[in-house]
Amino acid sequence: MLIYGIHTCQNAIHTKKHDITKVFFQKDKPIPNWLINFPKSKIVRLSSIELKNMLPSNAVFQGIAMEIENIKYDDITDLISAPKNCVITILDNVTDPHNFGAIIRTAAAFGIKGIVITEKCSCKITGTVAKAASGGIEYISIYVVKNLSQTIKTLKEYGFWIVSFCERGDKLINEIDLTGKTALILGAEGDGIRRLQKEQSDFIVRLPTKPSFPTLNVSVSAGIAFFEAARQNNFNL
Amino acid sequence: MLIYGIHTCQNAIHTKKHDITKVFFQKDKPIPNWLINFPKSKIVRLSSIELKNMLPSNAVFQGIAMEIENIKYDDITDLISAPKNCVITILDNVTDPHNFGAIIRTAAAFGIKGIVITEKCSCKITGTVAKAASGGIEYISIYVVKNLSQTIKTLKEYGFWIVSFCERGDKLINEIDLTGKTALILGAEGDGIRRLQKEQSDFIVRLPTKPSFPTLNVSVSAGIAFFEAARQNNFNL
Repeated sequence: MLIYGIHTCQNAIHTKKHDITKVFFQKDKPIPNWLINFPKSKIVRLSSIELKNMLPSNAVFQGIAMEIENIKYDDITDLISAPKNCVITILDNVTDPHNFGAIIRTAAAFGIKGIVITEKCSCKITGTVAKAASGGIEYISIYVVKNLSQTIKTLKEYGFWIVSFCERGDKLINEIDLTGKTALILGAEGDGIRRLQKEQSDFIVRLPTKPSFPTLNVSVSAGIAFFEAARQNNFNL
Repeated sequence: MLIYGIHTCQNAIHTKKHDITKVFFQKDKPIPNWLINFPKSKIVRLSSIELKNMLPSNAVFQGIAMEIENIKYDDITDLISAPKNCVITILDNVTDPHNFGAIIRTAAAFGIKGIVITEKCSCKITGTVAKAASGGIEYISIYVVKNLSQTIKTLKEYGFWIVSFCERGDKLINEIDLTGKTALILGAEGDGIRRLQKEQSDFIVRLPTKPSFPTLNVSVSAGIAFFEAARQNNFNL
């Protein structure tokens, strides 16, 4: 898989989370300091046009791309030993790569531990996602699960509270306690969270939006949810 | 100007804020109920291909576009009589149309009264912005100003508190009082808010993000700022 853009690639070098098999760097640009210790044999110099042709159309690659062996997804059972103020998020069928990337970026910024996605019907990590996440994929655990309903059961056994977001939620997000192990479920735009997932939730909450114009982009809703969780848990202070 | 997409066009009909001179509607789709009272003489039926060719590439138009005579921008002096819990936002050189549209959408959802943008160096309302705003342009006042510094002085005379967002702000957003007339200044990604605007601010605040990964998309930062303002002012309850 190819990732690209300065922030994304710099964070990949910095965190060493993924195996970087090759770096493609624009010929006419000087190698930056943060790449100096990377093995020279794995650095390929290319023209801007050659780089452009390797990447999705309209990709803003800023002179660099990297080949990553395998995206390392994480194992949900790691959460059995999650600390008591661990906050994660579950994305129920979010399919837009820009939204998924933006959610990863915001989750990383606020200290959210990880993101659960489903094997079917969800956007996976791609170059576009990594770019939109602006380096965030290096800081976040991503759990890919087969059966979301089963995963929610498991998380409950691990002591997580399940909080779903819905326009017609009965409480406001800021009215409930988000300290303690918490999983925030966010649904796809349009369809929202599925019935079964709502039924498994301990709380169904809404954001204080206008009844006549309640609609928010899922990455904005996620940002507010993560902010509120970070605020209540005194993350990053 | 052409706007497009179901939400955007439906809200344009609903609010009557802008003069709709023509509706372009896909031939093979039935006219929806909310268009039934619109003058038939102004409805043009086109094929999906013809519609596509009128609009920016990749536009998700959902079978409908509308021609709007003039975008009605608002006059900043209207704010002289703003009510005491009026919250507005000032965008300092936000140039990306998707971000600008997403900010309009979120502002409309949270009951923010209006958005100040600068005549130079800012994204104006375009079809792409209107689509990203998902109908929000119909609910929000947009003030286009020549001189941002002069506008901030005027807003201060009107009784507005000026609050700037910056990664290195000295207080957290949730630690300051956002009740009372408030103008929230958000800067362009990358450059942030300019020095002069910071110097004019009553408060410089930050969001509780990780020092090692503090970066947020401006539309996500805006969403959190608007949420916090709506929460403190009990908007939309």
